This record gives sequence, structure tokens and C-alpha cells, in this order.
Amino acid sequence: MTHANAPAPPRSTLVVTAHAGDFVWRAGGAVALAASRGEQVTVACLTFGERGESAKAWRAGKGLAEIKAMRREEAERAAAVLGAGVRFFDAGDYPLTESAELTDRLVALYRETRPDVVLTHPAQDPYNGDHPAAHRMALQARILAQAVGYPGDGDVTGAPPVFFFEPHQPEMSGFRPEVLLDITEVWDTKRKAMECLGAQEHLWAYYTDLAVRRGVQLRRNAGPNLGLAHDTRAEAFMRPFPQIARELA
Amino acid sequence: MTHANAPAPPRSTLVVTAHAGDFVWRAGGAVALAASRGEQVTVACLTFGERGESAKAWRAGKGLAEIKAMRREEAERAAAVLGAGVRFFDAGDYPLTESAELTDRLVALYRETRPDVVLTHPAQDPYNGDHPAAHRMALQARILAQAVGYPGDGDVTGAPPVFFFEPHQPEMSGFRPEVLLDITEVWDTKRKAMECLGAQEHLWAYYTDLAVRRGVQLRRNAGPNLGLAHDTRAEAFMRPFPQIARELA
Amino acid sequence: MTHANAPAPPRSTLVVTAHAGDFVWRAGGAVALAASRGEQVTVACLTFGERGESAKAWRAGKGLAEIKAMRREEAERAAAVLGAGVRFFDAGDYPLTESAELTDRLVALYRETRPDVVLTHPAQDPYNGDHPAAHRMALQARILAQAVGYPGDGDVTGAPPVFFFEPHQPEMSGFRPEVLLDITEVWDTKRKAMECLGAQEHLWAYYTDLAVRRGVQLRRNAGPNLGLAHDTRAEAFMRPFPQIARELA
Amino acid sequence: MTHANAPAPPRSTLVVTAHAGDFVWRAGGAVALAASRGEQVTVACLTFGERGESAKAWRAGKGLAEIKAMRREEAERAAAVLGAGVRFFDAGDYPLTESAELTDRLVALYRETRPDVVLTHPAQDPYNGDHPAAHRMALQARILAQAVGYPGDGDVTGAPPVFFFEPHQPEMSGFRPEVLLDITEVWDTKRKAMECLGAQEHLWAYYTDLAVRRGVQLRRNAGPNLGLAHDTRAEAFMRPFPQIARELA
Amino acid sequence: MTHANAPAPPRSTLVVTAHAGDFVWRAGGAVALAASRGEQVTVACLTFGERGESAKAWRAGKGLAEIKAMRREEAERAAAVLGAGVRFFDAGDYPLTESAELTDRLVALYRETRPDVVLTHPAQDPYNGDHPAAHRMALQARILAQAVGYPGDGDVTGAPPVFFFEPHQPEMSGFRPEVLLDITEVWDTKRKAMECLGAQEHLWAYYTDLAVRRGVQLRRNAGPNLGLAHDTRAEAFMRPFPQIARELA
Amino acid sequence: MTHANAPAPPRSTLVVTAHAGDFVWRAGGAVALAASRGEQVTVACLTFGERGESAKAWRAGKGLAEIKAMRREEAERAAAVLGAGVRFFDAGDYPLTESAELTDRLVALYRETRPDVVLTHPAQDPYNGDHPAAHRMALQARILAQAVGYPGDGDVTGAPPVFFFEPHQPEMSGFRPEVLLDITEVWDTKRKAMECLGAQEHLWAYYTDLAVRRGVQLRRNAGPNLGLAHDTRAEAFMRPFPQIARELA
Repeated sequence: MTHANAPAPPRSTLVVTAHAGDFVWRAGGAVALAASRGEQVTVACLTFGERGESAKAWRAGKGLAEIKAMRREEAERAAAVLGAGVRFFDAGDYPLTESAELTDRLVALYRETRPDVVLTHPAQDPYNGDHPAAHRMALQARILAQAVGYPGDGDVTGAPPVFFFEPHQPEMSGFRPEVLLDITEVWDTKRKAMECLGAQEHLWAYYTDLAVRRGVQLRRNAGPNLGLAHDTRAEAFMRPFPQIARELA
Repeated sequence: MTHANAPAPPRSTLVVTAHAGDFVWRAGGAVALAASRGEQVTVACLTFGERGESAKAWRAGKGLAEIKAMRREEAERAAAVLGAGVRFFDAGDYPLTESAELTDRLVALYRETRPDVVLTHPAQDPYNGDHPAAHRMALQARILAQAVGYPGDGDVTGAPPVFFFEPHQPEMSGFRPEVLLDITEVWDTKRKAMECLGAQEHLWAYYTDLAVRRGVQLRRNAGPNLGLAHDTRAEAFMRPFPQIARELA
Repeated sequence: MTHANAPAPPRSTLVVTAHAGDFVWRAGGAVALAASRGEQVTVACLTFGERGESAKAWRAGKGLAEIKAMRREEAERAAAVLGAGVRFFDAGDYPLTESAELTDRLVALYRETRPDVVLTHPAQDPYNGDHPAAHRMALQARILAQAVGYPGDGDVTGAPPVFFFEPHQPEMSGFRPEVLLDITEVWDTKRKAMECLGAQEHLWAYYTDLAVRRGVQLRRNAGPNLGLAHDTRAEAFMRPFPQIARELA
Repeated sequence: MTHANAPAPPRSTLVVTAHAGDFVWRAGGAVALAASRGEQVTVACLTFGERGESAKAWRAGKGLAEIKAMRREEAERAAAVLGAGVRFFDAGDYPLTESAELTDRLVALYRETRPDVVLTHPAQDPYNGDHPAAHRMALQARILAQAVGYPGDGDVTGAPPVFFFEPHQPEMSGFRPEVLLDITEVWDTKRKAMECLGAQEHLWAYYTDLAVRRGVQLRRNAGPNLGLAHDTRAEAFMRPFPQIARELA
Repeated sequence: MTHANAPAPPRSTLVVTAHAGDFVWRAGGAVALAASRGEQVTVACLTFGERGESAKAWRAGKGLAEIKAMRREEAERAAAVLGAGVRFFDAGDYPLTESAELTDRLVALYRETRPDVVLTHPAQDPYNGDHPAAHRMALQARILAQAVGYPGDGDVTGAPPVFFFEPHQPEMSGFRPEVLLDITEVWDTKRKAMECLGAQEHLWAYYTDLAVRRGVQLRRNAGPNLGLAHDTRAEAFMRPFPQIARELA
Repeated sequence: MTHANAPAPPRSTLVVTAHAGDFVWRAGGAVALAASRGEQVTVACLTFGERGESAKAWRAGKGLAEIKAMRREEAERAAAVLGAGVRFFDAGDYPLTESAELTDRLVALYRETRPDVVLTHPAQDPYNGDHPAAHRMALQARILAQAVGYPGDGDVTGAPPVFFFEPHQPEMSGFRPEVLLDITEVWDTKRKAMECLGAQEHLWAYYTDLAVRRGVQLRRNAGPNLGLAHDTRAEAFMRPFPQIARELA
């Protein structure tokens, strides 16, 4: 809970991801939930996942440009379903390489969108080096965007809270569910967004099961008395910075 | 944020501590804040701190019964200032010894007070073995109180969130501020409660400084734009179980 | 892989668990797999889970003796399905209390069964204190059973490798899948054993989903080229002691 | 234990190291063991260790080219003794600098050798920054080699298991022996390979003592009953990815 | 305690910092203490902190060159008060970027100053990426400076002990006080040095409070009997390498 | 380094161990070093190691009383060689059980010997549960001995620094060498003391090798320029509480 008694503009969420599909599998519920409240959500896709996450298309003989276009189109449709805007950085994946130039473009996006909340990958992923690279640039840009001495357009930002969404193999990536977000009411929307990603159909069931399992955990941690539906769906997040609270709850 | 749309009874907070003064130094702000909202707060003091935290009295030649009475009286006055009720278990400190009997008495208190929030010591304290002992019994009792098969009066409880308050030497005790609670509006109350503890006057300034320092951290983590007062006071807590959320903030 | 060129007796597995159902949910595949090879498997149930894991029966108004009998009967049927023997210690759950006497009975079981492999709970479980208590006694008894100076019947044992099976909330319990065991060929047996536990029907689907998810991880960690079935099922374990190997694989 | 029932080609091991001598001291036993089974072993030496690990030669007044040639010759002789092939990347040490180009050359080697097992340095070494740099590139190349979208010759590889060999100061480098490999039968071969490295004669006794100590640990972890020789020699490894198993042992 | 029976030159301390003010807030006491014993202290400021730590000046409309000059002048005055020399690398902050060239300049400084002790930032700081960047270069240069094969002027150095000074938010940066240095006798000097940093006046009180708090910890860890002054002031450090000792104390 | 300018009594070291031989293998050098300076050293052996560490004697058919007598005699001779006094608590090993009574006897010993330094086992040892039990009682007694309210003879003690000596399998016990003590000058004495322990002759060479290896580490961490002998011998320790220092070195 923030101290925000900010008057006018809607709350803003910025999602910084390595590949075009990440925001759907890992944070689609959070995105849909914010959008359903009339908040602004912007997804930064640093790459299209054209090399590392498009095996099926490569095996089908498609070319690089074609694959990028397909991934872009899929991501745009999924973002539209969720109610988010999406920006493509086309920085090249596998490997995604950290650079001052790419970080600077992210600083500009921070200053443009002025996020109240930031979502990104956690620090580790032994199965995919692009995710930690996106993580590091997202956090570095967040720091730089706060400094009045850092050049560029737009006003200096605050220090928005950050949430790390769940990686594909959480226990191997040091992931611990520190926040369980109830996404039951937007579950159908997330499912529809997942179904936009035709190239990875095998993940639909996988992430549906995960939402169920996190929902069970949510109910177990919430106690039996809260009238939660038996079909509760949830997403898990880490919270690397202290929560600022006016009440313990 | 819980899903509570519970109708009637006020929210309930249970604070489980080893010694009579712990709740004041470490969680006085959280207690006062909850009380100021009309919530019920119950402090369980497992011991009076008669042996381990009353050096001045022993040096002054007082006896055991006298010291216990003095500590009880101080704690009752401080609790009254904060707006909390206090229960003394008189289990004997230095060492406070874990036992099934004492844990069972805590289960009964859980079932009586039906807490929405539990505060207790963190797991480690290399300077005081009573604190981890209280921690273990507080968590064990919380589990047992949820089981319909565990005998005793009162209804089974839910699984309330737990917060660990800050130990005297946080870095040596594995303490990391995961929640920073803004206690500015009840700061004067906490200070008055601290002043009830005459035997430990040297700690008044120490915990005032700590509240200032945690306040600075709160403001730094909240970003510069939130209109927080320059004299923000805060208390820090750990949150061992996942936060249940309806919104990322 | 052990260096065992032991001649005659079949390999022996000892499973030490807190409650009557634990071995089914968490290690049923490993048990069935060993039994399917003609190995001996012995399950030690320190309690029936009569207080902490039988909420439905308590709510239905059953009494303690009745619940114990029901749990015993269910566990015996499940063990028979899996091909294991089961020993009940009836030590009382919620809380399961560590004691020298109970540990000594475990030492005797170690010396009787002379296990080549030991399975038990991991060290942490913030949702259930009985599991860590069983863990500590299982490991302590394993050490004592090796000492010629420790009194009791039977010969001194070796130092069998230990595996910790997966807790209900792995990320909250410091669990990391260090071994993924392919249980595809005995999956139907495990499912049948789960269905013996009528009191916990809601867990059947949960642990089926988990087996699928661990199977996906197994395939991902094994690489794409190994001809693994798409319906691979797996169980995850930790390995607290070094693996003794004759080959890196 | 892998599920390999691969038909024709011999198993392949790839060892990725920073300096020309690393594979001998740290993994010579594992290399000799695999070779003794008729398997293919390829050692990638990213540098000759010409600046950081050749102090004696510099002190003797030798020049850079001369030192490189000497280290190459020593490493080739040691590799021949162990039964491995060796590839020199000559990337320059002290510091060894990560680069996309060097990583790409490693990807090509992965695709050429198609390893069933990968050995490399662990993630940390506060005494030598080249070791972690080699580690990061070895792991990154392993990921890239699996992606059909990553350009280059050769077929996509699987996801071979990885083992980290023991650094010079294990406790300072977060090293924990997760696998103890029995190298007794190839110990004489490892010793001969070490003796090829004349420039570091002071390490012969050091790594002999280490093999003895790891052998004692192996016997202690294997239990007293396994008929292991009193002169058991061992090497220790970490296993960062889950072991895929068909049996717990 | 080192084994130094070095004859002639005074002991040398090298402080490697990211920004011009860091050495004052975080290590001013250690610097003043060494200088007060007639030792040589050299501070390397990799940047002036012109972008990231000069918000007030930017808000006042000053330009980059002007801010750098002001920060340089402040740092020089503070260093003079403490008794240290200061070197400015002007490498550009926010972000401070690691490079081989900058590391090489640090190697040269190591070889010139031949430090007996090195102070620098700890490895983590989620609030400022320049601090970890300085940390990594300081440690890398320390390794390279020891290698006779690394080119450059000056003799090879030894392996001086390293101390990490306290970051602004210690608990969020993995900081644990492993050494508490008594700076009581130079406290006034440190305070005067802090007062040279007019741009950050709000930190004077903050770091005074910290010195008091660390002083309390020092006394608590030293035991009650040591005749320490009630106004003991201290600074905290981590020690990443083993202490070399001739006595346990 | 303590602030002690205590006048008269010699420094006092207290070593709290589980079994009769522990102090020789793990801390014999530290003990001999302190004694060689004329300091008082007291070794508390909580048990004789009669069950868990006397396998050879049991196999030889000796009885309990006989084994205890033999272990006592060996330990007394070793202590005499090292220059230490030894106290036997005869609390029974395998398992050594924590108790308030035994802890109280340790408190009395703290108050009698008034240690300036305490040595004991580290917190973990997966191969021997008695070591952690001794560790916990040693630390608990140290806290209680400081409290004026804790009953018993003798004056309240200070808060002496604590050092954990090295367990038999350091990497499996979370042991990290934080202090390397140069024991070269008393090495012959330690070797003689080890040779008093005839029942464990196989450990003589093992702990000699360890002393050599820790000596190599000491020299590597001390840098090449310190004129340390090539036959440096060392013991490694952890330091759980902050070092109190007047100088960084």
C-alpha cells in the first residue's frame, strides 16, 4: 500500500521483459487486474524472443524477419486482450546483451510512463540468460531515472516498488513467493491472452495448472475463513524492496 | 491486504513476546496504530524479563518477587498507554524453556483472541536465547490452533499473517526490513510508552534514533514524490509468509 | 550409485514420515519403483496424523480412536498397493514431540531393516512442525545406528544416502529439486495408492498436477534428445549428503 | 544416471577451463576415468594461463610467446596422458574477458562435440576472476547451443548435466562437495598428468593430499561396509542442475 | 593482525570508492585513525558523484563542470582534514561502467601505493549500481596487481586484507558488521570532514547517529567490563578474506 | 584485539567440546599457543566420547567404564602436553542431550574461569549430533553467565569473543575459514598431543595434512611478501560475533 494521495493521472504499471511472450505467462493476471481498474499498463519487450523462444517456427523453416513479425503480432494481440500497451525494443535475443544504450532507452520509458509499480524478471535463471540481463537493465534504469543529474527528457521519477514475476523453474532460480496475487476475477482474460500465443500452445495447460497451484497456496496462507472461491487463481511475485505500509495486514 | 469482509468484530492483533518490555521497544508503534483504529490488541508476555533484562534492579539489591512486580507494573502502564491488553505467563526467563504446556496456553490464547495479525520475535538472536524460544512457541501454537483435532476450548482459527519485529542487533540476527510501517502519527504515544519503562532509560534515545533511521529508509523506498513528512518515524518488520494481495502496490 | 557389490539380500529402503499419508503423496513413486524391482521398502509412520491431518473426520464428529483406526487402515491399503511394509509408532501428532525413546525405536528399525536408502522430510516446514521433528529424529537415528557403542539389538549399519521428499509448499520450505526421479512406469500404481486415502480426496488432483510439472522439469533438464515420453511423471528430492559416484552422469 | 540408451557414438565429455593447467588439477581423475571407458573427452582451454599462472616463468625472464608455447606443450602432454583432446582458444588471461565472440566459439564446440557431460569452474572465486568468467561463458554457450534459432554449424544440442570442479580454496568459493567421484583406479594416471606441469611442481603434493582427503570423505559418506580400499582417491564436484534418476541411490 | 615485520615504509591504506563523498561517510574514521598513526592513506574516487549524488546542485541549476569542480574541492578539503591523499579518476558516474582501462589504472595505483589494507564498497547495493561496479573493479585490480605477468610499472604487490565499509541501507545490501572499529578518538575529525560536504548536510546527523549505534554495538560485543567510554563511536566493516592471526582475540 | 588493559590475572581461554578428543584435533594449536604465552586454558569435555568415538575399543570388547577411563586418561595426557586443564562433565554421548542442568554447570564454569576467549563447535554437523548440542549449550551458557539475575556463584562475566573450530567435514557443515591462526611454532606440541590419542591413530596423518593445507591458505591470504616459512601450519576458525578492533589489519 503506497501513501499515494496523488490526484489526477491513473496509476501506471511498467513491465520490463526479455521476450515477447514473458508478460503473458508470468504476469498476465497482474496486468489484466491493473487494466481492469482503469490503470495504465505498459509492457516493454526488449526482444521478440525470435531466436530463443521460437523453436517451432525455426523448425518449420521460417526466417528471422518472419518470426519477429509473428511474435510481434501475437504479443500485440495478447496485450490488447489484457488491456496493456506494448513497446518493442528489438534488441536481439539469445543472447540479450546489456548495454548503456539499451538501458538509456529504458530510462526514457520510465520517465515517460512514470510507473507506480514495476514488474520484471528475477535475478537468476540458469535456463535462460536473457531473463537476468533484462532484470539487471530494468533495475539499473529504475535507479538512473530517479537522478536529476541523469540527462534526458521527462521529469525525474520516484522509487516505485518492484515485483519479480515467477520464472519457469522457480526453485532453480531462487524464487520464493513473497506476494500471492488473487487473479481469479481476470482469469478468463489471462487464459484468452495465453491463447493468442499459438506458437507455445503446450504452455497453456502448464500455466493454467500453475495458477491453480498458486491459488491453493493463496487460500492456505489466507486461512480457511475468508470465503475465497475454491477456484481461486493466483500469480506469485517476489518483492525485493521493503513494503511501505500504513497497516500490518 | 486480507480479503476480510468480516462483518462485526474489530480486527484483532496478538503480540507474543519473551519479556515484559519487548512489545514496547520493538512494536509499540504497530500496537498503537492498530489500537488507534479501534482494533483489539493483546500482548502475551511469556516472562517478566526478571532475570535477563533487569540488571539494574538486581544490582540495586532487589529480590525476585519485587522485580517481577515492578516489571509487571511497568508493562501494564505501557500497554495502557498504547491501548493494548496484556497477559503475563510468568514462565521464567533466562532461560525461557519451550514446553508443551506453555505452547498449549498460547494455543488457548490464539483461540480466544482469534488474531487477524500476529507479531513476534524473529528466529535468531545470538544475544538472547529467550527470543528465539518465544518465536518457536508462537509459530507452533499458531499451527496447532488451526487444527480442529487439537483439543481445547474455542473455535479453530485461520492462518493469520505473521510479522517479526526488529531485534536489538538486526544484522547479527538475519533481520531484513521487509515491511516499513509508518508510525509517525502515533510516535508520541510510543515515546510515552517507552518512558514507562524506567528501568531501561538508556534505551529511550536508542529506539528514538532507530525510529528516525527507519523513517529515512521508508521515505527513500517510497520515492521522493509522496509528500511524506521529514520527521517520518517507522518500525521495520519481516514477513515470513507470502502476502495475500488484490493489488500490487 | 553405491559401490555395493553386496551379495545376497535385496536392497532395502526406509521411509521415515510424520503422518500416515505422507509417504503416499510425497514418495509413492519412489516406493513403488523400488518395490517393482523386488526391493524391500519399509515405511515408518511416527503418527497416524490423527489430529493435524484428519480435519474432515473431526468435523464429521468421529473420535480419536476411530480416526486412528481409519488412518491406519488407509495407510495399510496404500502401502500394500505400493508394495511396501508399514510400521506405526503411534507417537502422537500435533505436536509430534522429539524424544530419546522414540529416536531409540527408530535406531532399532534402522538396524533391523539395514537400509541402503533413506527417505524423509526436509528440515523446514513453516506450515507443519511435525515434519521437521520427524526429519530430526530420522537423521539422528541414522547417526546413532552406525555407532558400535550405541546399545541395542542388531548390527551396526552403514551410512546410507538420504533423500528428502517434496513438502507441500516447496518454495516456503527451502526445497530445491536436486534429484528428479522418473516415476512414469509406476504412475498408475501411485495414483491408485493416493485413491486409498479417501479422507484427502482434494489432494489427488493436486499431486497428479505436481507429478506432471516435475515430469516437465525432468524432460527439460534431460535435454530434448532422450526419447522421454510426453507424459513423463516425476518426483523431486533433495540430497543432503554427497553422491558417491563412479561416473559423472 | 541419464536415460541414455543412445546407440552408436561414444559418450562425450566437454571440459571448459580458464587456464591450461586447470583441467589437470581439478578434473584430471574425471577425465581419465571417462577416457578409460573409451569415451571422448575434449578440453577447452580459453587461455594458456600465461600471465596469471606462470609466475615462475616470468621471474625467470621468459617472454610472452615463450611462456604460451611452454604452457601449451605441458597441457598437450598432460591431456595425452589422460586420454583427452585439447583445444586452445588463446583468449588472453588476467583478465579473461567475456565476449560474444568467445562465447560463440564455445557454442560451436558444443555443437561439434555434442557433450553428454560438461565440466567447468564454479561461479565464484575471490582469488581469480578468470575462473568465474570461464564459468559464465561455459554456461551461456550451453544454453545458446540448444536453441535452433541460434545460428551456426552443427545440430542443436541437448541439455547435458553440468559439474563444477573444485576450486583451490573451496570454502571461500561457496564450494560444497555434492558428488564425490571415486578416481582410485586412475589415480596413477592423474599423478602422471600432474607431473607434466613442471612449472607448478609445488602443487603436486597439494593435489595428492586433496585426493586423499576427498577419498576419506567418500568412504565416510559411503558407509563402512562397502569394501572400499583404504587408499581411495576422489575428486569433488558440484551439480547445479537436478540429477535425472531412474533409481534413488 | 599481519605478520608484518616490514622495516621502513609506513603502512599504506588504499580506499577505492565510486563517488567523491563515499570515503567520508563510510570510512572517515578508519582513514583518520590510520593517518593519526602516521600511516599513508590514499583515496581513489572513481567519479565525482556528479550525476548521481549531487541532486541539490542540479536543482540549483549548476552545470556539469561546475558540479564536478565543487565536488572535487569538497572531497579534497575532507581528505585533508582526515589526513589522506585523494586521486580522482573522473570515470563518469550514473552509471559508472566497468572497463579494462579503468581497472588497469587501479592496478597501477595498487602497485604505486602498495597497500597493507584495502577498503571498498560491498558487493551489493540495490539503491546504487555504481557502488557494486567500484567494488568489482577494486577486487579485480587487487588480483591483477599481484601477478608478475600483468604488465605495468611497479613491483608486484602482496595480497592485502580487504574491508568493505557500510552501505547506506546495510540490511538491504547483505551487510553484516564483522569488524567494529573504535573511532572514538578521531570522532571529532570525522565530524569535521563530514561538515566539508556542504551539499549533503542532511547526512551529518544521520552518520553521527550511525556512529553512536555502532558504538553501542561495539560495547555490547566487547562485554561490560572493558572500561569503554559511554560515548564510544564506531564504524562497521565486513572482512571477505580470512583474518590472519597469531592470537585468537 | 580486545580493549583489555586488565592488570593482573592471565588471559583465560575456555574450550567447550562434546567429546574427549575434540579439543586436540580441532583446536590443539590454539590451546598450545595460548598456553605458551602463559595464559590459562580450560577444556570442558561434556562427554568422554565413549559411545560415538570409540569404535575400536568397543570392537575390542571393552566395557563402558573401561572405555571412559581410557578416554579420560588419553585426554588428560593430551591436555597436559598442550598446557591446558581439563574438566569432564560425563554427560553421556551419542546422543549428548541438552539440558538445563548441564547448561547450568557450564554457566558455573564460565563464572569460575572468566574466559577472555571461548572456543567451541560450529552450529551444524550432519555427521554428529553431539557437536551441535555442545555448541548450543556453550552459547546459551555464555549468555546466561553475563546476567546478574542468573543465580549461582561467581561474578557475572563479560561477553567474550567466540571462535568455532573446524569440523571434520567443513564444507558439509557450513564452515568457512574466517580466521587462520598461525600455529607453526607450536606444531610439534600439537602433534605430540595428537599422538596421545592412540585409539584414533588414523587421524594423526589426516590432521597433519589439514594443518599443512590451512598453512598454505594462510600464506596465500597473507600475500607473498611476509617472510612466512614454507612449512607454515595453521588452524581455521569461524568468528560468529563482530571483531572489536582498534586498527584494520
